[in-house]
Amino acid sequence: MAVAELTTPTWTKQGLGSSHLSYLSARTSSCRRLSFRPLRRTHSSRISCSVNQTAQAPAAVETEVPKSNKPDCFGVFCLTYDLKAEEETKSWKKLINVAVSGAAGMISNHLLFKLASGQVFGPDQPIALKLLGSERSFQALEGVAMELEDSLFPLLREVQISIDPYEVFQDVEWALLIGAKPRGPGMERAGLLDINGQIFAEQGKALNAVASRNVKVIVVGNPCNTNALICLKNAPDIPAKNFHALTRLDENRAKCQLALKAGVFYDKVSNVTIWGNHSTTQVPDFLNAKINGLPVKEVITDHKWLEEEFTEKVQKRGGVLIQKWGRSSAASTAVSIVDAIKSLVTPTPEGDWFSSGVYTDGNPYGIAEGIVFSMPCRSKGDGDYELVKDVIFDDYLLKRITKTEAELLAEKRCVAHLIGGGVAYCDLPEDTMLPGEM
Amino acid sequence: MAVAELTTPTWTKQGLGSSHLSYLSARTSSCRRLSFRPLRRTHSSRISCSVNQTAQAPAAVETEVPKSNKPDCFGVFCLTYDLKAEEETKSWKKLINVAVSGAAGMISNHLLFKLASGQVFGPDQPIALKLLGSERSFQALEGVAMELEDSLFPLLREVQISIDPYEVFQDVEWALLIGAKPRGPGMERAGLLDINGQIFAEQGKALNAVASRNVKVIVVGNPCNTNALICLKNAPDIPAKNFHALTRLDENRAKCQLALKAGVFYDKVSNVTIWGNHSTTQVPDFLNAKINGLPVKEVITDHKWLEEEFTEKVQKRGGVLIQKWGRSSAASTAVSIVDAIKSLVTPTPEGDWFSSGVYTDGNPYGIAEGIVFSMPCRSKGDGDYELVKDVIFDDYLLKRITKTEAELLAEKRCVAHLIGGGVAYCDLPEDTMLPGEM
Repeated sequence: MAVAELTTPTWTKQGLGSSHLSYLSARTSSCRRLSFRPLRRTHSSRISCSVNQTAQAPAAVETEVPKSNKPDCFGVFCLTYDLKAEEETKSWKKLINVAVSGAAGMISNHLLFKLASGQVFGPDQPIALKLLGSERSFQALEGVAMELEDSLFPLLREVQISIDPYEVFQDVEWALLIGAKPRGPGMERAGLLDINGQIFAEQGKALNAVASRNVKVIVVGNPCNTNALICLKNAPDIPAKNFHALTRLDENRAKCQLALKAGVFYDKVSNVTIWGNHSTTQVPDFLNAKINGLPVKEVITDHKWLEEEFTEKVQKRGGVLIQKWGRSSAASTAVSIVDAIKSLVTPTPEGDWFSSGVYTDGNPYGIAEGIVFSMPCRSKGDGDYELVKDVIFDDYLLKRITKTEAELLAEKRCVAHLIGGGVAYCDLPEDTMLPGEM
Repeated sequence: MAVAELTTPTWTKQGLGSSHLSYLSARTSSCRRLSFRPLRRTHSSRISCSVNQTAQAPAAVETEVPKSNKPDCFGVFCLTYDLKAEEETKSWKKLINVAVSGAAGMISNHLLFKLASGQVFGPDQPIALKLLGSERSFQALEGVAMELEDSLFPLLREVQISIDPYEVFQDVEWALLIGAKPRGPGMERAGLLDINGQIFAEQGKALNAVASRNVKVIVVGNPCNTNALICLKNAPDIPAKNFHALTRLDENRAKCQLALKAGVFYDKVSNVTIWGNHSTTQVPDFLNAKINGLPVKEVITDHKWLEEEFTEKVQKRGGVLIQKWGRSSAASTAVSIVDAIKSLVTPTPEGDWFSSGVYTDGNPYGIAEGIVFSMPCRSKGDGDYELVKDVIFDDYLLKRITKTEAELLAEKRCVAHLIGGGVAYCDLPEDTMLPGEM
């Protein structure tokens, strides 16, 4: 076993006082995949615990019964521990389980280290990272786990790597679904919808079966709105409002473009909504947005720019980045995922809001129900949100919202077979993938 | 100008109260490279300010005189501002200038976003990032700056991109020198020393000419010890003790391997020194290291492992990562740079220390003077450090320290021509690059 050659804990108690025994473990006996629930997967997952099977003297160790089984744990994160037993950690919150799919990819490579550092959930929130990859990416997943080991993050207490969503999603409070198949050459959005729809249907079923009953799900893999819809429809036991499609990078880019146009720093821009789909039909809303607390249209009097150039500038950002940087925007996407999580776990600043693609049932705007649509949200910081009521519409905004709504309804028809809606009928008129996205 | 097409501030005051005027600027007139000091560079640098030259109504704006010139500023970061004038920012510290070389590379891609987020210097420390790249990487630098814009970091107030070290290092309090030429096929360490030595001689001269007189320099580009030596020898007006070669990733990896072997979590491992060169002659010190406050040799009784396997495990980590992950360890390297900075700006925990490659003049261990050698350091958190006196040595440790010392003295002879030491004579006996590093 390749990893075992790298990392060979010995689990002895030489020189350790009894107060440290909770950090010891006879992991040698649990270094196998535990099949403690029915599996519905097509691939077999690999063992990844890096504890040496021939490590010295496990029989001599006074071990505690592990508090939880740790299938597919990695290296130093296979240790059992008792945070309440140590001075430095006893005031910490209860561990949270965070699953990340596409964990070997570039966005995750930024995101995982942010999650582990404590900057997302706070300095007293220990965290377990559960990394979902593919058979093809498994070695890379091991590499990511090794780098997490080498980073010595005190809050990072567990790392698990697997290719089985039923294993990774076990008891997770957060699922950050970044992984998706990239669009192949010549593939239309319809083809991508179907390929990725299968993945998100499977992941929805897995979440429904094993995740925390109040898991929050953020879908990043494209086409993210309809992927989120498929996911939530396949997870009927989880509240539909817990599913999000990420439009926060679009919101951040929109704020930056408004700031640039107005000649102000970006922290002066607020109340920016992205309406609708994460595609070229999305609507960055300048009608409700504010700069220094004033309506954008009062600050930026070049309304022609707002109507004709602003949206394009927001949407072309990813494409320009690919041209310049040669890769898609992994770092700023990861930042926007952090922003999206923080917006749900910290109270929204008075008078402001944030955008997220959420389920439309019960929305106050008259948007068709049964789709995932980016809308303005506020949170008390409890992980939940409510839709903002005091927004205004004009004909220009409504017309564009109607167009992105129509697109999402068409996407929904394309994936009817994946959401219990009968036979799919796909009539997407045009390719609306955002430039620079896969 | 390509960037100008993306970002077109208009610098109008429509709708803005006079209290916001400090955020306005007539940048159109300063969107050119300012030649305010003699340049000693061979390449011409490019203009990168993204302000539209034809932006509307600059003449109508009540502008303030910019407090500083901003050559090669980028996009929204070209704005002038007055942090003291705003409620949210008036309690902030004075802006610090941080230069990063190799800014378009993967390590920087992780590091820059950490610096900008506030997790390194704290939540009340505004920051200016000054990015040094090459002509070849200039477009990528623009891409990095765009992603920094889109991330909306409140503390990030200025971003400058350039290929001219004299411009980038102007007034910097920190210089994180990550950029170095990778080793070409068949190139020996001696060849790498010469090629990169030229770069670091130039950068040392530039720091000497324009940086803050108390700038702290961390050299990451390999061979980092001797690059740091070259840099400090070319910067005679900056204290030699301000120069560091990064051995913190080695220290972190050593801690992880000791934790794995002992079956404890890595936060129980302390007092780990990396002695000497960032190469395969480096000495991860298990004699002085502690686990749960006890000497490692009392906790890990497999002394054969400590003497024969431990060092190799630490050093092979990078190579294994490349095999698994297909890239070098950018994320954990960036984490270790953050650790290295934090170790200098926060007080070292009582009884512990950290490793850094620093100038040996006046060291208490009898190590040859005039080289950059990784040794145990403590800091009061003022950016400075002192060497730890209470360390012990045995024959095994001394013998290995002597070997890495001999290597660094040999490396010094190879670069004599770059440090005012006459004719270089290069007799490096073997290739000691760490696996997985360029």
